Formats: sequence, structure tokens, C-alpha cells
Amino acid sequence: MDVKLINPFLSAAVNVLKVMAFTDARAGKPYLKNDRKASGDVTGITGFSGDVEGSLSITFSADCIKGIISNMFGDHVEEINQEVEDAVGEITNMICGDARRQLSENGGYKLTATIPTVISGLRHTVKHISDGPFLAIPFETDAGSFAVEVCFKQ
Amino acid sequence: MDVKLINPFLSAAVNVLKVMAFTDARAGKPYLKNDRKASGDVTGITGFSGDVEGSLSITFSADCIKGIISNMFGDHVEEINQEVEDAVGEITNMICGDARRQLSENGGYKLTATIPTVISGLRHTVKHISDGPFLAIPFETDAGSFAVEVCFKQ
Repeated sequence: MDVKLINPFLSAAVNVLKVMAFTDARAGKPYLKNDRKASGDVTGITGFSGDVEGSLSITFSADCIKGIISNMFGDHVEEINQEVEDAVGEITNMICGDARRQLSENGGYKLTATIPTVISGLRHTVKHISDGPFLAIPFETDAGSFAVEVCFKQ
Repeated sequence: MDVKLINPFLSAAVNVLKVMAFTDARAGKPYLKNDRKASGDVTGITGFSGDVEGSLSITFSADCIKGIISNMFGDHVEEINQEVEDAVGEITNMICGDARRQLSENGGYKLTATIPTVISGLRHTVKHISDGPFLAIPFETDAGSFAVEVCFKQ
């Protein structure tokens, strides 16, 4: 997989969480396998198309997203409510937007994004349905873990 | 909301399940509210962009999807495994593809789709993050219920 396509998503996740939610996200070792699925409690999903087509998901543990949104709102968040879901949608949108900006500036790729969708539910799994390149990056924060997955169409 | 945009998704869901899985899906009363979320056990999600941008989700109860995939495979499906998830991705892709074909032929809309994502997990909820028009259609089959939600960017 072309690292030029992946790095923007990785750095966008770090940037957006830093700027919007004052949260340091530490990237772990990426994995490329399609049989391993992200698993968590809240997921933001968005697609993109244009010069490259694909999908992006960001899957948080409940503790992690409560910590991130508490930082973002400046107020302790105790449950995954509608406000938290809207904020996850916004974070997903901004990560995809920042990655698209970098891909346009550095690689000349023109991409448009679709509407984000947010899934809530204890211990759900997320699977991207494509034979194309797939990359997942696990992240750690002080509040818990999340994973960013990006998948491209062949 | 322009009914011309919605009907293709409704008829695509009915057509695809009929042709691929020999399943009759009976549409219930559509609802337009953004505060009501689809809730189920397996969800296929895809986005589309082009002349109109939006997102599509199809959320099944476990009984419903096991019934549908049993019909499709011609073999009794007992659990939501990787094969079932792949089949839900394929169904989602085909529903979006058939709706895009109708929108192109009848309305002149040109749309491209993104990669589908499949969520598994008991009683998760699905929320489309947009201020734009939103429509949800509940369906019944002999095996159980599912809901199709379509959301457009303003």
C-alpha cells in the first residue's frame, strides 16, 4: 500500500484530537490484515470518492471516547448520549477532511467525502468490505484505546 | 424531501432481497425524524457522492439477517459469522448500486458509491450525522425486521 495514502489519515487523527479535544493519541503498530476487525463501543464511519475511493472508520472504547469528549466539552461526560454521537460524527468528518486536504496538497488527489454515520453499542465489530488495500492503526490515549481503519478500492 | 430521490432506495431494497435472497420485504410507514435511530444487530453502511452526497444504512435484527442469508445460501445460517458479514456488504452494495442506476436512468443523477462497511453487535444504534434530508423505511420479512435509512447532504 502506498504510504502516501495512509500517512495523511494517521496524522489527521493525531492533529484533530489534539486541536479539538486536547488529547494526545499515540499510534501503535499498524496492521494490514483483513481478517482482524476493529472492535469497540462507538464508531464513526465515512466514505470518500474521487481520484481514490474508500472508507474510513474510527472505533473507540467507551472509556476512551468519554475521556476525549470530556476534554472537548470541558465537562465530565458520563454516558454515550446524542451529544457524544454528534461529536464523534464531527471528529470523523474533520479527520477525513484533514486527510483529504493533505492528499490534495501533497499528492494532487481530489476526494469528496460522504456523510458520517455513528454507531453505538457495546463491543460491536467493524468490517470494511473490499478486496483493496486496507490499513488499521491502533492508538492509545490516557483514557483508553481507539483504532483508525482505512480501506481503498482496488 | 424529493420523493424521486427516495423511491429508488426503497424499490432497490425490495428488488435486491427478492432476487438475491428470495425474500419478500414489506415496507412500513417511512419516518423522517432525525432523533429516532435505527437499532439492530447487523448493519451495512455505504456512502455515495457526485450530483448528490449522502449515506445509506440497512440495519437488520439477528433473526431477520439469519433468515435472509439462509435463503441466499440455501443453507441454514446459525450465527453472524464472516460469511454473513460479507453477504451483508454485498447486499448493501447491490441496493446502493440499483438505486444509483435508477437515479441515473430516471433523474439523470450521476453518483459514485464508496466501500461498504458492516457492523455486527447486539442492539447497536446507527445515526447519520447531517442537517440534510433524512428518511428511514422500516421493513418486515417473514424472518424479522430491518430498516433502510438514507440521508442527504443539504
